[in-house]
Amino acid sequence: MASNSRERILRSAAKLFSTQGYHATGLNQVISEGGAPKGSLYFHFPGGKEELAAQAIALSGSELDTEFAQVLHDAPTPGEGIARVLGLLGTRLAESGFTKGCPVATTALDAASTSEPIRQACNDAFFDWQHTLTEHLTAHGRPDADTLSTVVLAAVEGALLLARTRRDLAPLTAVAAHLRTTLDG
Amino acid sequence: MASNSRERILRSAAKLFSTQGYHATGLNQVISEGGAPKGSLYFHFPGGKEELAAQAIALSGSELDTEFAQVLHDAPTPGEGIARVLGLLGTRLAESGFTKGCPVATTALDAASTSEPIRQACNDAFFDWQHTLTEHLTAHGRPDADTLSTVVLAAVEGALLLARTRRDLAPLTAVAAHLRTTLDG
Repeated sequence: MASNSRERILRSAAKLFSTQGYHATGLNQVISEGGAPKGSLYFHFPGGKEELAAQAIALSGSELDTEFAQVLHDAPTPGEGIARVLGLLGTRLAESGFTKGCPVATTALDAASTSEPIRQACNDAFFDWQHTLTEHLTAHGRPDADTLSTVVLAAVEGALLLARTRRDLAPLTAVAAHLRTTLDG
Repeated sequence: MASNSRERILRSAAKLFSTQGYHATGLNQVISEGGAPKGSLYFHFPGGKEELAAQAIALSGSELDTEFAQVLHDAPTPGEGIARVLGLLGTRLAESGFTKGCPVATTALDAASTSEPIRQACNDAFFDWQHTLTEHLTAHGRPDADTLSTVVLAAVEGALLLARTRRDLAPLTAVAAHLRTTLDG
């Protein structure tokens, strides 16, 4: 079976798990939206839905991490960098009709308590994002980079949750302004 | 049918929706854990699972709002008040084996995009908590109370998500320290 059927399944799964969570996502939906042959799912993911979810979370996490690192790198200050990350996430959320928030949070909340492989994948994604932030803040001379990056990640995640529920970008704007002041003084 | 069968169903639903979300929660589980007669669910909640979820979210939201208001009122400063709220949420999370985080967030992420009554109930709960915070900050003379309460709620929600996924209270501690400095100077 072509390796692009694996890729198609994984991308379809990443999209579905991120918007509707683990339990609402059926394997038939993953296959039909991914346009992959039915038999290929268990061929590529012998651990079934749980393995697929863990790998989909890992893919989403790593792609967003690369994007974050680039945006932070291109910004003149850390506060401006975070504000640009929030701007990007806000555009994506609004353009999707407020369905595309954090690609990890929905599955983290609805499945991480009952599946250790999924919890680990979600935790790894959060860890990578926080690590990217910590390195960036350290490079900008913040001695409290580790604590600060926890606060930044928490505020960004919470703002996405509130904005998605409210169908309004105001929480992202409020958090961007606060973090700009906190990080750039 | 006794009105306490309604209460039992609602409490069982509130617990299940808050820990595992909307889609993982079946009505049979709500009934069996609530110890209510099977026929009583549609008698009390003719709108079925969707109505039950909206009312369970409303109950959880309003109980937590009352608790927040009391803790904030009893604290000497707003920063100390928020730190105590985070302490309380952290104790509850750890004592539940990291399953009881925010009682609204899981359902907000896994069902609010597809059900307007559920989205509204989640949004109302977030609004009430933020309103309680805004009033408290205004009473303490903060002219930026509305923006600040958005930031506080986002940071608390994000910290609960990270702590639950990490199975570690460190994100709550980091956010409490940051908000104490932000609010009390």
